[in-house]
Amino acid sequence: MRQKAQPLTFVLVHGSWADAGFWDGVAAELRKQGHTVYAPEYPGHGADYKNTTATHAMMSKAVADYIQNHDLRDVVLVGHSFGGSVVQKAAEYVPDRLKRIVFIDGFVVKDGNSLADELPPQTAAFFGELAKQSGNGTVMLPFPFFRDAFLNLAPLDVAQKIYAGVKPEPGGPFTEKLDLKKFYALQTPKSYVYLYQDNVLPQGENYSWHPHMSSRLGQFRLIVGDADHMTYFKTEPKKIAELLYMAGRD
Amino acid sequence: MRQKAQPLTFVLVHGSWADAGFWDGVAAELRKQGHTVYAPEYPGHGADYKNTTATHAMMSKAVADYIQNHDLRDVVLVGHSFGGSVVQKAAEYVPDRLKRIVFIDGFVVKDGNSLADELPPQTAAFFGELAKQSGNGTVMLPFPFFRDAFLNLAPLDVAQKIYAGVKPEPGGPFTEKLDLKKFYALQTPKSYVYLYQDNVLPQGENYSWHPHMSSRLGQFRLIVGDADHMTYFKTEPKKIAELLYMAGRD
Amino acid sequence: MRQKAQPLTFVLVHGSWADAGFWDGVAAELRKQGHTVYAPEYPGHGADYKNTTATHAMMSKAVADYIQNHDLRDVVLVGHSFGGSVVQKAAEYVPDRLKRIVFIDGFVVKDGNSLADELPPQTAAFFGELAKQSGNGTVMLPFPFFRDAFLNLAPLDVAQKIYAGVKPEPGGPFTEKLDLKKFYALQTPKSYVYLYQDNVLPQGENYSWHPHMSSRLGQFRLIVGDADHMTYFKTEPKKIAELLYMAGRD
Repeated sequence: MRQKAQPLTFVLVHGSWADAGFWDGVAAELRKQGHTVYAPEYPGHGADYKNTTATHAMMSKAVADYIQNHDLRDVVLVGHSFGGSVVQKAAEYVPDRLKRIVFIDGFVVKDGNSLADELPPQTAAFFGELAKQSGNGTVMLPFPFFRDAFLNLAPLDVAQKIYAGVKPEPGGPFTEKLDLKKFYALQTPKSYVYLYQDNVLPQGENYSWHPHMSSRLGQFRLIVGDADHMTYFKTEPKKIAELLYMAGRD
Repeated sequence: MRQKAQPLTFVLVHGSWADAGFWDGVAAELRKQGHTVYAPEYPGHGADYKNTTATHAMMSKAVADYIQNHDLRDVVLVGHSFGGSVVQKAAEYVPDRLKRIVFIDGFVVKDGNSLADELPPQTAAFFGELAKQSGNGTVMLPFPFFRDAFLNLAPLDVAQKIYAGVKPEPGGPFTEKLDLKKFYALQTPKSYVYLYQDNVLPQGENYSWHPHMSSRLGQFRLIVGDADHMTYFKTEPKKIAELLYMAGRD
Repeated sequence: MRQKAQPLTFVLVHGSWADAGFWDGVAAELRKQGHTVYAPEYPGHGADYKNTTATHAMMSKAVADYIQNHDLRDVVLVGHSFGGSVVQKAAEYVPDRLKRIVFIDGFVVKDGNSLADELPPQTAAFFGELAKQSGNGTVMLPFPFFRDAFLNLAPLDVAQKIYAGVKPEPGGPFTEKLDLKKFYALQTPKSYVYLYQDNVLPQGENYSWHPHMSSRLGQFRLIVGDADHMTYFKTEPKKIAELLYMAGRD
C-alpha cells in the first residue's frame, strides 16, 4: 500500500441538492496526492440554480462538452448519486476520452427508465408531491428527511450548515426516461464505490445502490467505504478521496 | 465531530436472556458524556426472574409505567433485541413523552405477528422445543448456540462469564400476537442501529434485523456499527454508547 | 480481548489460481501466536501444476490423506474460495479428526451441485469458454478480470506481482457434481468468515458467499472482516490470521 500514487485525471460530477462546490474538499485532497481534478457545474445548479426547467439531457450534454472543450483524455469520470445517471449519458458522448467510469453511491439507471422509476414508489410519490407544492416544479427536501437520510452520521450543526446551502432541485430530470443502450454497450472499465451507512435508498435487493444497481454494470471493481450519502464528503474528504483513488487507479 | 454532546435522556430496554444490568457499561459511558440514563427492569427478569409466566403485555406496560412514574420527557427510547418489541408496545402508551425511538438490532414486529413469527421456522421450533423440555415454559439456550450466535466476537472466557449470568427466559411472550397498529401510526422519529457482525437472525432479505425489519419503520436514520449481538455491550461499551448517541441526537 | 491465545491446529486449504504458498504470510502470523499450522498442497497445483486433469475427488482425498498421514487431531480445517468445496468433501473422510470447519469466502456447495452450478450463468459460461480456448481444459483468467474481481483493494504493482505467480487452473473440477450428503449430516461446529469487499461472487441473495452460501451451514459462527478475496492474505496477513483465530477458537 506504500506505492506512490499513479497521477490520474478526475472529472467529478455531483448529484442533486448539491453543486460543484460539493467536491471542494475531496478535490483538494486528490490534488494533494498529485491528481488533476475537474468538477464541472451543470445546468440548473450552482450559479445557474434559477434555471428550474433544466433537463437531464442538458445536464449530461454539459458534462460531455466540458470534457471535450477542455480536451481531457484518460478521464476517470466519477458520478455521485443523481450524478451517476449524468455520467451514464455523458459517457455515451465521449467514450474515447474515458479511462474508467466510477460510481460512488450513484444511480445506474436501467435502459429506458427514469430516475423516479429507480426509487421506491413512496419516495417517488413524495418527490412528486414536493414538486407540485413548490409551484415551479422544483423539489426541496424538508430538513428532518434530509438530515436523517442524507446526513445520518453528521452532528446536528454540520447537518444544518450543509442544509443551509442546499437549493431546490429541478424536478423534471427525475421523470425523464433515459435511453442508455450506448452506455450498456461501452467496454470502458467500471468501478462502484459503495458507502455502507448510506440509507438514501433502502439497502438490500430491490432498490439499493449496491448490489441492486451496481450489478447492472456487469464486471466492475467494488470498493466499500464506511460513510453515509453526503457527510464525509464534507467532514472526511481525505477518506472519500482515498476511495475514489482506489476505484480509479489502473 | 468535535461538537459538544447534546444532553439526552435515554431509557434503555434490554432483551431476552438479559436483565437491566446488561446496560451497566453502556449507561456509565453515556453518563460520562453528560446524558441522563434509565435502564428499567421488567417482569420475568432480574430480581423477578422466577416469574416465569410474565407476559409481553406486562413487560411493555411496565416500561411505559416506568417512564410515566418518573415523569420522563423527551425520552430517547432504546430497545435491544427482544426489547425492540417491548419498546414498540411501550411507545403506544407514552408517545408524547418520546423524542425518538431507537432500535439496536431490535425486533420490529409486524402488526399482528408474534416474535416467533419473525424467526426462521427452524429457530422458532428450536425455542418451542426448549420451552417444552424445561417443564415450566422457559427457554434456556445451550452454551454452544449462545456462544456462536450471540457472542461470536467474544473470547471464550468472556463468553463463559456472560453465559454464567444468563437466566432462563419466560417463553410465553415469544408466541404472543402483538397488535401494533398504534405503533405504526406514530409520527415519532426513529433510528435503527445495525450491528453488522450480528448473526442471531440470518442476514439478508427474509429475517434480518436490517434491512428486513428496519424497513418496516418507513423513514428512519440508519447507523451501522461493527459489533455482534451482545459482546461489545460488555467489552466495548464506549463504542455502543457512541452508536446510541449518533442514533438519538437531533 | 486480552486473553492469551488458545493454541490451535490449523489445516489451511487454498483455492483456485493459488497454491499452498498462498498461505505463507497467514501461516507465519498464526505460528507467531502459538498455533500449529499445516498448508497441504493438492493435485493440479504447486509443483503438480502440470497435472491438468486432476479431479475434485483427487484433491479432497489428498487433503483428507494429509490429515490422516500426519495423524492430526482437533483440526481447525479452513477452506478459502474453491478450497471451501475441497474442505466439504475432505471433512467427510476424517470427521473425527476435526474440531471445527471454517470457510473464509469459501464455496459451500449444495449437495449434488458442481462449482459451476454455484456461479452466475455468465461467469460459468466465461470459465467454460476459457477452458475451451486453452486447448488443455485449464482456465486462466485475464489480468483485468483477476485484478478487478480478486484483487480490488490492491495497488497495481501488488496485483501484477500476485498475478505473475498464477498458474492455469484445471477446469474439470468446476463441473464435477459433488455428493455432499455426508457433509450436511456432520455435527462438527462451523464458522464462516465473510470478507465484505469481496466481489468475486455478486453480493446479495442469489450467489453470494454470505448470506447465500453460508446459510447452508445451518447454525454457524459468523466473523466479518474488511478485506477483498485475495489481497490481504498477501499484504495484511496478520488481519486474516486474526479472523481465522476468531473463527476457530472454542
